[in-house]
Amino acid sequence: MTSTRIYTAALMVIGDEILSGRTQDKNIAQLATWLNVQGIRLKEVRVVADDMAAIGEALNSLRAAHNYLFTTGGIGPTHDDITVDAVAAALGVPVVVHPKARAVLEGYYAARGGLTDARLRMARVPEGASLIENRMSGAPGIRYDNIFILAGVPHIAQMMLDALTGTLEGGLPVLSRTVGAFAPESEIADLLRETERAHEGCQIGSYPFFNQGRVGANFVCRSVDATALDACVGAVTEGLKALGYETVEGGI
Amino acid sequence: MTSTRIYTAALMVIGDEILSGRTQDKNIAQLATWLNVQGIRLKEVRVVADDMAAIGEALNSLRAAHNYLFTTGGIGPTHDDITVDAVAAALGVPVVVHPKARAVLEGYYAARGGLTDARLRMARVPEGASLIENRMSGAPGIRYDNIFILAGVPHIAQMMLDALTGTLEGGLPVLSRTVGAFAPESEIADLLRETERAHEGCQIGSYPFFNQGRVGANFVCRSVDATALDACVGAVTEGLKALGYETVEGGI
Repeated sequence: MTSTRIYTAALMVIGDEILSGRTQDKNIAQLATWLNVQGIRLKEVRVVADDMAAIGEALNSLRAAHNYLFTTGGIGPTHDDITVDAVAAALGVPVVVHPKARAVLEGYYAARGGLTDARLRMARVPEGASLIENRMSGAPGIRYDNIFILAGVPHIAQMMLDALTGTLEGGLPVLSRTVGAFAPESEIADLLRETERAHEGCQIGSYPFFNQGRVGANFVCRSVDATALDACVGAVTEGLKALGYETVEGGI
Repeated sequence: MTSTRIYTAALMVIGDEILSGRTQDKNIAQLATWLNVQGIRLKEVRVVADDMAAIGEALNSLRAAHNYLFTTGGIGPTHDDITVDAVAAALGVPVVVHPKARAVLEGYYAARGGLTDARLRMARVPEGASLIENRMSGAPGIRYDNIFILAGVPHIAQMMLDALTGTLEGGLPVLSRTVGAFAPESEIADLLRETERAHEGCQIGSYPFFNQGRVGANFVCRSVDATALDACVGAVTEGLKALGYETVEGGI
């Protein structure tokens, strides 16, 4: 049963490769999209360096402020993978080898040269944690209380999210509908403000673009109430038409 | 003159569109790359909602902890553009219309229907701020003390960064070189750990991939010292070859 309670989540992206500009993050949008379906709202993201203190500080701040905290990155076998150690230190618990994770990795590496010390690193968890299945490469994600520790490689993180689908308590999912128009934002700002004010429980976001040499914007209406959302989208559409703009349902 | 002092920056990405998954952020990687050239290290990123309190809290935390704070998003003409109000409130200063910004917008909109109230919103700044030029659309960015308020649209943000190039005090830029190999991370973890330990002032990041059906990783060595960096890259390359892997300078 869904409720009107609002459930929030935060994401901590761990990795020097994001902060150096080497890697374009894809986990923020991926997690946000997945959370929407679970009825959970992503409220805050922090990107932190591969640094014990920075990870620990963000972890304790975010896990206290939100129902759920997800992390991505830093759980591989190399020396720069320090997420498990940093999380355990911040939680004040020791790091232990999880017997099931060890068994999974032994199976996975049986035909790949065996379980070396480096590979065994991927079975380490904060004491008391459970595992999140990873069908791709054997090395599991980790759950501890309301903390979900995922891989940094986006398609592995996605598999871990698949394994979590439907298991987290959430509220009503936020619905959204988009209307696009070749209307300069500055000419329809009043319309948007007044329409949002007139439709309680709805939010309107305005996202400008340059497309086919013309200025325009997409107007994204969001609400947990489908009827209110339809009324809001209708009002935006009618308002744009009254100002002489053609509208495109679904956005441009 | 560059110094050995380390200059750090944080980025606050403002916008519900990032947290809802609707928009894939591009400003983190873009700013990180630009900062590298300025000799400034991006140490932390926070993505926050279009919410006065959330923006204010992150602003005051980040501007105190770093030499520079950049923000992207929320400076357009619509009702959901609240960055200037939120920053001014957090700083404890009033919002005023900047005369030069007003003049720029009057010029820009002279042939586009004139300066409406909505458009005039884009001339509002925290009192005491200066402007960052934007050749694209007239509406300027804003500088206040060590805070740099940029547009959310990546190519407009990039123009504002162009206008700032060379104007910020930085240290030695971080140099990086990449070596790639079709080597599973878990087989070269010891090599990487030992090589990093033996090369002071160098960091090695290991970034796994699946490519052409094969597992491999790119090894990114970073240092402010070109000689140390070359030695580190040489040691990684020789070590990989000794383990039987072909290496690709520049990465795979």
